[in-house]
Amino acid sequence: MNVAIIGASGYSGAELASLVAKHPNLKLSGSYVSEGSLDKHKLLSDLYPEHLGLLDTPLLPLTKSAFDDINANADYVCLCTDHKVSVDLAPQFLAMGKKVFDLSGGYRLASNDDYVTYYGFEHKHPELLNESAYGLAEWNSNDIANANLVAVAGCYPTAALNALKPLQQAGLLSDDKIIINAVSGVTGAGRKASVGTHFCEVSLAPYGLFNHRHGPEIEQHLGHQVLFTPHLGNFARGILETIYVQLKPNVTSEQVAKAYSVLENEPLIRLLGSKIPSIKGVAKQPYVDIGWQQQGSQLIVMAAIDNLLKGAAGQALQCINLSMNLDHTTGLKGAF
Amino acid sequence: MNVAIIGASGYSGAELASLVAKHPNLKLSGSYVSEGSLDKHKLLSDLYPEHLGLLDTPLLPLTKSAFDDINANADYVCLCTDHKVSVDLAPQFLAMGKKVFDLSGGYRLASNDDYVTYYGFEHKHPELLNESAYGLAEWNSNDIANANLVAVAGCYPTAALNALKPLQQAGLLSDDKIIINAVSGVTGAGRKASVGTHFCEVSLAPYGLFNHRHGPEIEQHLGHQVLFTPHLGNFARGILETIYVQLKPNVTSEQVAKAYSVLENEPLIRLLGSKIPSIKGVAKQPYVDIGWQQQGSQLIVMAAIDNLLKGAAGQALQCINLSMNLDHTTGLKGAF
Amino acid sequence: MNVAIIGASGYSGAELASLVAKHPNLKLSGSYVSEGSLDKHKLLSDLYPEHLGLLDTPLLPLTKSAFDDINANADYVCLCTDHKVSVDLAPQFLAMGKKVFDLSGGYRLASNDDYVTYYGFEHKHPELLNESAYGLAEWNSNDIANANLVAVAGCYPTAALNALKPLQQAGLLSDDKIIINAVSGVTGAGRKASVGTHFCEVSLAPYGLFNHRHGPEIEQHLGHQVLFTPHLGNFARGILETIYVQLKPNVTSEQVAKAYSVLENEPLIRLLGSKIPSIKGVAKQPYVDIGWQQQGSQLIVMAAIDNLLKGAAGQALQCINLSMNLDHTTGLKGAF
Amino acid sequence: MNVAIIGASGYSGAELASLVAKHPNLKLSGSYVSEGSLDKHKLLSDLYPEHLGLLDTPLLPLTKSAFDDINANADYVCLCTDHKVSVDLAPQFLAMGKKVFDLSGGYRLASNDDYVTYYGFEHKHPELLNESAYGLAEWNSNDIANANLVAVAGCYPTAALNALKPLQQAGLLSDDKIIINAVSGVTGAGRKASVGTHFCEVSLAPYGLFNHRHGPEIEQHLGHQVLFTPHLGNFARGILETIYVQLKPNVTSEQVAKAYSVLENEPLIRLLGSKIPSIKGVAKQPYVDIGWQQQGSQLIVMAAIDNLLKGAAGQALQCINLSMNLDHTTGLKGAF
Repeated sequence: MNVAIIGASGYSGAELASLVAKHPNLKLSGSYVSEGSLDKHKLLSDLYPEHLGLLDTPLLPLTKSAFDDINANADYVCLCTDHKVSVDLAPQFLAMGKKVFDLSGGYRLASNDDYVTYYGFEHKHPELLNESAYGLAEWNSNDIANANLVAVAGCYPTAALNALKPLQQAGLLSDDKIIINAVSGVTGAGRKASVGTHFCEVSLAPYGLFNHRHGPEIEQHLGHQVLFTPHLGNFARGILETIYVQLKPNVTSEQVAKAYSVLENEPLIRLLGSKIPSIKGVAKQPYVDIGWQQQGSQLIVMAAIDNLLKGAAGQALQCINLSMNLDHTTGLKGAF
Repeated sequence: MNVAIIGASGYSGAELASLVAKHPNLKLSGSYVSEGSLDKHKLLSDLYPEHLGLLDTPLLPLTKSAFDDINANADYVCLCTDHKVSVDLAPQFLAMGKKVFDLSGGYRLASNDDYVTYYGFEHKHPELLNESAYGLAEWNSNDIANANLVAVAGCYPTAALNALKPLQQAGLLSDDKIIINAVSGVTGAGRKASVGTHFCEVSLAPYGLFNHRHGPEIEQHLGHQVLFTPHLGNFARGILETIYVQLKPNVTSEQVAKAYSVLENEPLIRLLGSKIPSIKGVAKQPYVDIGWQQQGSQLIVMAAIDNLLKGAAGQALQCINLSMNLDHTTGLKGAF
Repeated sequence: MNVAIIGASGYSGAELASLVAKHPNLKLSGSYVSEGSLDKHKLLSDLYPEHLGLLDTPLLPLTKSAFDDINANADYVCLCTDHKVSVDLAPQFLAMGKKVFDLSGGYRLASNDDYVTYYGFEHKHPELLNESAYGLAEWNSNDIANANLVAVAGCYPTAALNALKPLQQAGLLSDDKIIINAVSGVTGAGRKASVGTHFCEVSLAPYGLFNHRHGPEIEQHLGHQVLFTPHLGNFARGILETIYVQLKPNVTSEQVAKAYSVLENEPLIRLLGSKIPSIKGVAKQPYVDIGWQQQGSQLIVMAAIDNLLKGAAGQALQCINLSMNLDHTTGLKGAF
Repeated sequence: MNVAIIGASGYSGAELASLVAKHPNLKLSGSYVSEGSLDKHKLLSDLYPEHLGLLDTPLLPLTKSAFDDINANADYVCLCTDHKVSVDLAPQFLAMGKKVFDLSGGYRLASNDDYVTYYGFEHKHPELLNESAYGLAEWNSNDIANANLVAVAGCYPTAALNALKPLQQAGLLSDDKIIINAVSGVTGAGRKASVGTHFCEVSLAPYGLFNHRHGPEIEQHLGHQVLFTPHLGNFARGILETIYVQLKPNVTSEQVAKAYSVLENEPLIRLLGSKIPSIKGVAKQPYVDIGWQQQGSQLIVMAAIDNLLKGAAGQALQCINLSMNLDHTTGLKGAF
């Protein structure tokens, strides 16, 4: 299958390009950037010297003729673009009959109202919000396999939902709001130059209190209220979430362990039990590491992922694998 | 006044030595390490090249004759030693008539039971636990000024208590347990060689879930239950705490702001209002930065300090200043 | 004395502002940015939260009326601006009768030809190149004290010249080209957002081979040919230079030590002998650390500085002190 | 083929274990540590959480019965042990008929005298020094394929020799000593706890001036004198070497390019021409990146590798592949 990547110069796009280039069943048919991008006509490996030899492929501007080429040559189109750009592009590629995998937040929430509230814009294609499958590979494989438009799960939600859905499904959660304290590496902020991502300016600090878009994304796909507080940390890759859960009264540690056992055969999820995940354990790895410790009805769940390789690009590849009826871990498990 | 520092080779001890050496009213009369230390007879500036010229002073083994020298020459003795060592040493120096400033946790909790439970040892001098003043400078200045034994506040509690005591005193806290998610730099783990502090092993990860000693320290000196979860982060200096507080119903943002105004004239506390503190803002600075944001009765308080320069050594210097009836910020404010 | 700083939002400018604000004999009369700067009207402490309380001063656009204010209120003007901007501004402030301290490279080289060759522009005021004093404080104090225009030494040259001038003056250098392998922290690249200084893009790598501007600056002020190769390293502050020197035949280690003794009473220079300097030893310190080891006629000299606090802003403050006939270390030695 | 790894708990050993575990033609038959190791009986994935699921294999103490097991089960034995330990162990495994791959320096130099001079011990098996093949895969494949004892090349020499042998073979080098300024990440210093590798102590600084063991190793296998100066840098993985070469008079850039073309078909060597290598480009990659720029007869060559994945473990795997008559890049090229 041929894959075109739109927005290939960013961290998610380039990571996905490298995964596609090494995948046994996929071919990278084209890497695209916006027409105004300063990176157009550069090689991907000019931007990412680690991929020299693998990604010596030009970044093409997304012109009219680029659309024609994609129409002629690509089977799958991956959107690694800004939310609004993704909203606009997805229907165009769907109309060509392509399967579209959107790594932005453009098709993850339930309604136009959500977009007005959390993203600050009117959604131009709200009718597609019901048709899109939420791309959380371990939990939604059938929908993903059958959808033409997959809204690949966000990086923070990937960690949070894998950590919390087992508890929610087992009915162990009290009604209390779950507190999610999350820290992300700087690749999560994108590659665009800004003072905030300057080497000397990055520092551990929270941001987006009470209003980060991944809060409602987690709530809608978990079915439980959360207080989600992200932080930017001084490392390149990875997310660590420390999650404070109030269980129903008298829930035992055995019940918690049993709840998590629903994931025990998932190859990209590593259940650590009472051991403690870390950024180091998951950086440049395609896994979710989940650990937990309990005291009475207070449970602390810890989840760690590489934000690009299990979040973003890795999750997108899982979704592509599902679309092809391949093992969803193809090109990921054992590859790093 | 002459200051002897026991345990001067560690991060807290060396930082305190540098503060004493630069202080207009203090003299560093001796720097000591345990008799078995590999660092004995080295210069402090051999270990800390940044202090070359300032701390070209030998690390003396704490022999019998060293005790005699301290007795003869020192007015104040600062213990930058392990908890149990501090418990043993403090009465010896008190018996010499010295004022003792203990930077360990050896005299911070209320009872022998607390030490059995949280520190794992029987306290040999429980009668001193009532006599020691808790060295939280901004909140306990009279006791500190009059005490012969000051239990300098822990680094995590310094941030947490300054962030929470205003709310507690104003009666704004609901009965819910307060969740404190804290991240410390690696100097907080001490200078002793260990795999856990190896450059290549440090990674953002939680530790000490449900059982870290600073949890009960915060609870005893705040008068409110907390769930305290520390993390080790990949930076050298600093602590950031993200604190989730449930206010009583109908508490307004004006009430919260008024509560914090009790600190507005404290020179080493910077109230940021809705702005967000960061490690970068406090590293190598003697300040507590406190910010907060509220949504309904949910309040998120953020506090940041340099763990050595407002915690540990800086806090100890404030206590020493109070003992001398100096402005407690002498040698700190404006010095960096 | 009142000091105006032009270009105060950058790393050098803000560091200098903090030094001026804490200096016993100086007052910061104004902090200016270009009229188009996005930072205008922000407080310096908004950009630099570590300086909250110290630098709560607005960044003013350099308008016509700003020039009038500077004329009315400032004694000294410090230019922390781009090379070409400095070339333009210096004569304007000199015409007002101000002493000008230029932290750029605009007045450091000998001739217009040098600027065409190494900076790529025609120098508009070549007549001032002879009038400006080269601001290398330990070596040129009389000229600095008497000049109206001081071309503050570059950061790399500050380390290299202090390390090499003792050998050159003692006549110990062979004719061979000296190889200077230098690594700078990222503050040296400025605060402006760019992909090259993005947290995730910074990596140890050389740049500017054979053509960096600090090569000719070192050569002109040393009087010896050098091959200067800078690198960007993954740390915020500091410069380390490893310098490969071929001595004349039969030069002894005693002769080398004697050559360096010319610096032994300089308070901001720390001679380490055979000990090895490091970035850690000088970061946030106003010192040059110099060490050396010899084998036959091969000498390796190692020099380390904080690029902002001994280079750039620190060096500028030394020059200002010299202009006021103060001890040139005022506000630096013992201040950190 | 079955591979036993001695010293598997260190960075090189664990990296090699992961490469063997993922290799299509190899099986990890046992992972061993010294009998006194505190890590014995732990799982490799307890030490290296990133390898959870891949290396859940116990670290076995190297007892007498362990030797019997290795004799019975292993085809290849890899020594990731200290130099002297390797010197002792190699003949024992050779006597069992195993092929031995030694990642230490125990068999890399030419004579006992070299070991006395550079390693500080008498070599107990100097007769094996002639029998061992030097494991620099791209340059010595026949010897490696046929040897029973392979002295895998050191990490610094791997970068330096690939960068310099093309010039040497083409006869372009003048007689001048080549200056190699090298910086290594902290994994190069090993995993053992020490103050020198403490997170807060690591800083860019040179070490081992004039006497590092990799200097003579490079000289012996290059056939040219070098001045090799290593530095420890503040990053985990990678080596960057900036190499100052004096060419013979009138050597043209075409001649230099032609010299390097001898490597142009080597899959693990990436010739960058005038582009500049960086640590970022090679970290967690199995490549040597080589770039160069010339001015007159002065050539600056820059070489970068991952010290574990092209040096140490990666180089060892290339040598194992050669022993099996496999493509020497099996399990490396395209695997990351």
